[in-house]
Amino acid sequence: MKIKTRITELFNIKYPIIQAGMVWASGWKLASAVSNAGGLGLIGAGSMKPDLLREHIQKCKEATPFPFGVNVPQLREDAAELIKVIVEENINIVFTSAGSPSKFIDFLKNNNAKVVHVVSSLKFALKAQDAGCDAVVGEGVEAGGHNGYDEITTMCLIPNLCANLNIPVIAAGGISNGRQILAALSLGAEAVQMGTRFAATIESSAHTNYKNTLLNAKENSTVLALKKIALVRMIKNEFADTALSEEFEKCKSKNELLELLGKKRERSGIFEGDINEGMMEAGQSAVLINDIPYVKDLMASLIDEIKIAKDTLNNLFI
Amino acid sequence: MKIKTRITELFNIKYPIIQAGMVWASGWKLASAVSNAGGLGLIGAGSMKPDLLREHIQKCKEATPFPFGVNVPQLREDAAELIKVIVEENINIVFTSAGSPSKFIDFLKNNNAKVVHVVSSLKFALKAQDAGCDAVVGEGVEAGGHNGYDEITTMCLIPNLCANLNIPVIAAGGISNGRQILAALSLGAEAVQMGTRFAATIESSAHTNYKNTLLNAKENSTVLALKKIALVRMIKNEFADTALSEEFEKCKSKNELLELLGKKRERSGIFEGDINEGMMEAGQSAVLINDIPYVKDLMASLIDEIKIAKDTLNNLFI
Repeated sequence: MKIKTRITELFNIKYPIIQAGMVWASGWKLASAVSNAGGLGLIGAGSMKPDLLREHIQKCKEATPFPFGVNVPQLREDAAELIKVIVEENINIVFTSAGSPSKFIDFLKNNNAKVVHVVSSLKFALKAQDAGCDAVVGEGVEAGGHNGYDEITTMCLIPNLCANLNIPVIAAGGISNGRQILAALSLGAEAVQMGTRFAATIESSAHTNYKNTLLNAKENSTVLALKKIALVRMIKNEFADTALSEEFEKCKSKNELLELLGKKRERSGIFEGDINEGMMEAGQSAVLINDIPYVKDLMASLIDEIKIAKDTLNNLFI
Repeated sequence: MKIKTRITELFNIKYPIIQAGMVWASGWKLASAVSNAGGLGLIGAGSMKPDLLREHIQKCKEATPFPFGVNVPQLREDAAELIKVIVEENINIVFTSAGSPSKFIDFLKNNNAKVVHVVSSLKFALKAQDAGCDAVVGEGVEAGGHNGYDEITTMCLIPNLCANLNIPVIAAGGISNGRQILAALSLGAEAVQMGTRFAATIESSAHTNYKNTLLNAKENSTVLALKKIALVRMIKNEFADTALSEEFEKCKSKNELLELLGKKRERSGIFEGDINEGMMEAGQSAVLINDIPYVKDLMASLIDEIKIAKDTLNNLFI
């Protein structure tokens, strides 16, 4: 089975399955494993300094002959340096998130990169299309990590994007199994991007404690917090309690907020495995995760699940 | 084209499309129109006294030879009286929402009714299954009106329910077009329930101002409010501002809250068309509504959209 969409053509990949570039979880090991299995792997530059990103890109090139890309959260102070490394290393697939889609696009397009911007609403998606992006990732509020303030869900966001854009749409937010991939394609998406699901694999560089937290998550284990800084979906724990506390609500300046929160919470939660005081970004789909497999086996399962879901769906029509 | 699922068999309907029983919008005209068009219409008893419900049931019987049902929000003080009317009128399809699924089920089952309970989480769905319900409506947080506090989205809720229940699942929340119906079926649902979409039809008894508000809604026109009483998704307007205000947050007793809110806000918003001070319950899918059609035409469009979406989906697989 092969699935052909404008996105699989754009990136020259076998399956319309993209692994999200995540902080502390998606280095070269994860990205190359996904690309080797027929999807598109993304190195998450959000937790890397420029030199470390260069190292990951070079190792990823050695580990896979297939296309892979890099995700750059533009809110990083050194985003321009990260972009420079990407261009110097001839990476021609770049996913940008946060901030204006036009920030680096001319530079990237002049260097032959395909550019995809992550958006949480049609309003931002139209800006990305106008800026010249090749595609958008439409990310519903069920997604882990940073979220849009309008809290639009994947079910409503994707068909609205597809009805109003000319460029192809990649669906993200809440997707971790084959049924959901088929649902996203039904909505008009031409690929899916999955974060939380790929964070819970052997090749993910996240800490075992973090992976086990995803494995044990219930349907109500995540919560949206930090509305005063940047809305983030995370696992409920002591840190999340602080982020949702009255004390936090009463902080008046950004500095006060940041002081209360403490530093490097993403690192301590995801990479160092502090399940109480770390910030453990995760999507609502964690409830559907029942194993921590090798990427190759996960991809094979997803393809099987898609096939079964498609046959089941078609059999309903008589 | 016909679609056959356990739900279409259970209710003996042609299409797995159920019109939600809504306050002030779904009387006998809407319910009978939906049933006549091959779906399942539901009379919304939530805004009716027992005598008025009886009148609507009797008129609906005259208006359609096909099955229809009644939705009863169990938080109504006179819910037992409404249930009594339903049984006396030999209605054998009952959807219950809010409160325990076991409240009326024995009485209803002893009177040959099929009983479906509306749930917002797997936790509540398992209780409904244990109580003996024939099916559940799994309603994601994108839905209009009352919502669950866990804020689980349709994309994550439905596959989790389908993976863990033996009884069939009806998907609700954010669904208003054919692509989304196909997506819900892909997720494992065996029917969809749509509220907002059917509220914006000619046969809906909602006020023209309310219907036009749905027609003009943007992706960010709804908001979740009233967390301290019962979480409700509604159109952003002056009433919603009050419901989200600091003044509201500071109220200490339920009486204080109710006094600030004022009475009969649903009636004034949905039935009387006060677009500023009325409570206009609506789902996120309002953004996808572009017309106020007759139900017959809407149903025909939905079926066409499902066919097109299914062909488009299958053509991706090569």
